[in-house]
Amino acid sequence: MSKSELRILGQDDTDAACCSPMVREPLDASDAADLARMFKALGDPVRLRLLSLIASHEGGEACVCDLTGPFDVSQPTISHHLKVLREAGLVGSERRANWVYYRVVPAALARLSSLLQIAPAPAKGGVRA
Amino acid sequence: MSKSELRILGQDDTDAACCSPMVREPLDASDAADLARMFKALGDPVRLRLLSLIASHEGGEACVCDLTGPFDVSQPTISHHLKVLREAGLVGSERRANWVYYRVVPAALARLSSLLQIAPAPAKGGVRA
Repeated sequence: MSKSELRILGQDDTDAACCSPMVREPLDASDAADLARMFKALGDPVRLRLLSLIASHEGGEACVCDLTGPFDVSQPTISHHLKVLREAGLVGSERRANWVYYRVVPAALARLSSLLQIAPAPAKGGVRA
Repeated sequence: MSKSELRILGQDDTDAACCSPMVREPLDASDAADLARMFKALGDPVRLRLLSLIASHEGGEACVCDLTGPFDVSQPTISHHLKVLREAGLVGSERRANWVYYRVVPAALARLSSLLQIAPAPAKGGVRA
């Protein structure tokens, strides 16, 4: 049975937790580099709050004009952080009229979420807090 | 109805996805600082691979002697990366006989995983890739 078949069989959440790619086998260098870039983008408090502001905003998208108020940093700094999130594939943007609107990319967040979904008691046993 | 009641009602996986703390309301600065520190620890390819090696190792734990072979970096560098993972609360360690053994901290990974679990079609609508 191929790995993709195994993943299809494991699509309900319980099985998926057992089959986190990170637990199934060691990550290879290429996947790790790709994923580390995304985690690194999340490794800043202002960027995490920006992502959360976008995700929690009405309609799931936020105008850049909604994103500067809550922070004690300059607008260019906010723009830089949004660029890092966009380049990591975590948010998408669209210009409409005079403003740029941002929304999260659910598939990217789901990929990271699933990677970290480690079963509390995997078949190999013993991984507990 | 209190937020905690809402979370209890939302414990099945579909509802829980709708209630990711990041989507429910913007993250506050203190939570963001704490979480960003953990994501930053994951934002390095060697550290991600180390975490994966530990998580996928027989018994869910790995001796430091199992963790140096696969990398083209020095043993002190590996030790430094393991220290960063430990200080971020992502792995725990225990000395037994002559070796230090590492295991992941499932609660920490679950916290990050749940934060990133954004429903594909939340009630607010429209957050799609």
